[in-house]
Amino acid sequence: MTNYDDTICAPATAAGTGAISIIRLSGPRSLAIIDRIVSFRNGSAAEAPGYTLKRGDASGLDEVLVAVFRAPHSYTGEDAAEIYCHASSYIVSTLLDRLVEAGCRLAEGGEFTRRAFVNGRMDLAQAEAVADVIASTYEAQHRVALNQLRGGYSAELRGIRDQLLELSSLLELELDFAEEDVEFADRSRLRELLDSTCSHCRQLADSFRVGNAVRCGVSTAIVGAPNSGKSTLLNALLRDDRAIVSDIPGTTRDTVEETFVLDGVLFRFIDTAGIRAAADEVERLGIERTFRKIEQAEIVVGVLDLSRPEAEMLADARAIVEKVDLQMQKLLIVGNKCDLQGVNKNVKALNDFVLSLNSEQDKLDYLVISAKSGSGLDSLRSSLVSHAGIASATGTLVTNARHAQALRRAAVSLRTVSDSLDQGLPTDLLAEDLRAALAELGTITGTITTDEILGEIFSRFCIGK
Amino acid sequence: MTNYDDTICAPATAAGTGAISIIRLSGPRSLAIIDRIVSFRNGSAAEAPGYTLKRGDASGLDEVLVAVFRAPHSYTGEDAAEIYCHASSYIVSTLLDRLVEAGCRLAEGGEFTRRAFVNGRMDLAQAEAVADVIASTYEAQHRVALNQLRGGYSAELRGIRDQLLELSSLLELELDFAEEDVEFADRSRLRELLDSTCSHCRQLADSFRVGNAVRCGVSTAIVGAPNSGKSTLLNALLRDDRAIVSDIPGTTRDTVEETFVLDGVLFRFIDTAGIRAAADEVERLGIERTFRKIEQAEIVVGVLDLSRPEAEMLADARAIVEKVDLQMQKLLIVGNKCDLQGVNKNVKALNDFVLSLNSEQDKLDYLVISAKSGSGLDSLRSSLVSHAGIASATGTLVTNARHAQALRRAAVSLRTVSDSLDQGLPTDLLAEDLRAALAELGTITGTITTDEILGEIFSRFCIGK
Repeated sequence: MTNYDDTICAPATAAGTGAISIIRLSGPRSLAIIDRIVSFRNGSAAEAPGYTLKRGDASGLDEVLVAVFRAPHSYTGEDAAEIYCHASSYIVSTLLDRLVEAGCRLAEGGEFTRRAFVNGRMDLAQAEAVADVIASTYEAQHRVALNQLRGGYSAELRGIRDQLLELSSLLELELDFAEEDVEFADRSRLRELLDSTCSHCRQLADSFRVGNAVRCGVSTAIVGAPNSGKSTLLNALLRDDRAIVSDIPGTTRDTVEETFVLDGVLFRFIDTAGIRAAADEVERLGIERTFRKIEQAEIVVGVLDLSRPEAEMLADARAIVEKVDLQMQKLLIVGNKCDLQGVNKNVKALNDFVLSLNSEQDKLDYLVISAKSGSGLDSLRSSLVSHAGIASATGTLVTNARHAQALRRAAVSLRTVSDSLDQGLPTDLLAEDLRAALAELGTITGTITTDEILGEIFSRFCIGK
Repeated sequence: MTNYDDTICAPATAAGTGAISIIRLSGPRSLAIIDRIVSFRNGSAAEAPGYTLKRGDASGLDEVLVAVFRAPHSYTGEDAAEIYCHASSYIVSTLLDRLVEAGCRLAEGGEFTRRAFVNGRMDLAQAEAVADVIASTYEAQHRVALNQLRGGYSAELRGIRDQLLELSSLLELELDFAEEDVEFADRSRLRELLDSTCSHCRQLADSFRVGNAVRCGVSTAIVGAPNSGKSTLLNALLRDDRAIVSDIPGTTRDTVEETFVLDGVLFRFIDTAGIRAAADEVERLGIERTFRKIEQAEIVVGVLDLSRPEAEMLADARAIVEKVDLQMQKLLIVGNKCDLQGVNKNVKALNDFVLSLNSEQDKLDYLVISAKSGSGLDSLRSSLVSHAGIASATGTLVTNARHAQALRRAAVSLRTVSDSLDQGLPTDLLAEDLRAALAELGTITGTITTDEILGEIFSRFCIGK
């Protein structure tokens, strides 16, 4: 028994030049509807076992292949079918027309995956991962999404949930015997469980910073005075063969932003205008905009022109350092144009400048490069990767802002439980906060959901998934 | 036994946002290679019967479905497989990498269909129709391509071929007994066969004009003086809801040209500048360009501004009529702006002008419309459809220039045979021309081909087909 009584259909392949298109059906009447619009030589789709392919004829339109799936062994858990036809927009739209005429409804975005969730084929975190797996364009992004799709992340959340349920039952026990004023629960076990689950939630929530960088790329700004060589440097980094995400015939890159992958880390470049100390009013507006963009960057590459007079170069360096929040951002200072004559004195001055900035807490790096000749670029690439701090990230990464928020709220509730415990507050107050933490975790995997949350999540899916 | 010993792979679905992507394999090692990169819980692909689907795991990358096909019951006639994976460019490119590592070669455009042809699964005309079926965006185009794919066209050519073979054997018989100076062949039967096949070839070749219009659209030029309302008219025609080829979520229109379908006929509009009698040098150049474009049009819609002074309107009308070749092109004269006051006198002048042009052979039409108010547009649409002369076209349509050329050459050879017969030339000369006609027909279905022709034909296919 599944939870829907209508049958939906949608194209499942991208529109455009291809050889084959897929139309997907799911719902109790899938196979009966297939039999109404496709005729088969050897028995109907309704009689076919699951996981078989049938060659058939969509009257006057196309010869098609039909895949038959039987509940519960399908993506959605319902009876389902896929039609493989020639990739012509006319054929696809006519088949959809005929399906609708035969009793199907055109699916909304994400409706197949929503059914898979509602029918218990996957939890909500896994369902959300489906969209991420599809959107992945490079390895790290894909790995994280696939782990989530396969339930690795859900299993970890279930572990936390189980600990909270243990805590909860310990507290319930105390509540039952509250009148007798006896503390049954082992307080040290309770405290231990609280601390470990609270820090686990916090750690997962914190992993969102890295998880988001994996998913969306590490935002990186290349800043510097005009003519310091920012564009040449960006182009040199982008031109690198290793930067190309995918170049197989038939696949294209969706992105028009300047991004590239280095050692499995995606960098997303923020375009900035040149910055310098003195400027007229109009230029100042452009520079203000650049400053605001710098604030969004996780890594700032400050480019200095080693061929400038020393005092000007150092003024440029100070202008950059001033604009970077060293607590929140990584700064990488780059002395460019080292291929030019007579820059040694400036290299020394740059070294002294960086040393003067370094304190116990903050240690700045600098590199001497030539964007033009390519000298030093390999070191710059390594520095970018190590500054990104993603390659070394291990364990589960939260890539979804909704999940990070739920985890943070759960951690706050658990912290309240811990405080209440310290203050000797009544056990029923503790139990309430514990239930709040459990509810937050439940929203991630979907044990607790509302139609509104589901609508919001699945509306961002593409049609046919 | 098939004709290739290597195994090819390619993505078969369009790149872009979708739910599912397909990767196609064909060749003797297809199933063994699948087993190297996908692990199945229930037996290997190599052991699976044809037309089954298997759920499997592409290590660390994705959970996939694999369709198994066994020679000769596959598209190519070889062992073949299709992998259905999540539609992520990373997954598709990584799977292709792994397939190549495991021994596949990336397929060239059209290579799957080329194999289907070489392995005898379809003839060349059918193989060419595959690309047309995929490219079809509206019904008439699709119907013609599907008829060709299903072999309807090939069957008709086979009929002609059989008649020519009969002719040939009649002549060969005569050759054998030439020394005895006896005419065995029934000359009247020979003459009858010659005439009917020759006219059949010519008729098919001539159908290319309509066939090409069905396939590529009826080229239509809207011409007229500046401000006569050409753009308003074009927009009014395009804005019409019925003009939209396909508007299903998930499908997009490839074309950026201005085309629309009316009653199953595709019109393709040629953009033209305004034309008028007097103009300066620069304007004259633009007008010259317009004239050249008008020459390409099958239908010319001449737009006149009914609100202009009568003499000027008639001068505009004459300028248009002069530029249209009434033997080759259809002219539709349209008096526009009939919604304005005081145009009745000009309507009468236009009527007189058109009547004065009409002769026994040429009968011109004119319509009074208002592109702005929409008045008369329905009549204009009906006139366009009837002028296109496609809706009424019956029988086989040749849509391929290569085929039309071969049919025309065959008709010429048959004509030569007929002439030689009249002139009483030796039978061996007749037999040679007959063989030439047979050879031409053979190039269409591919009984006679060269690698060069095949390369030329299949290079225009998309990857994965």
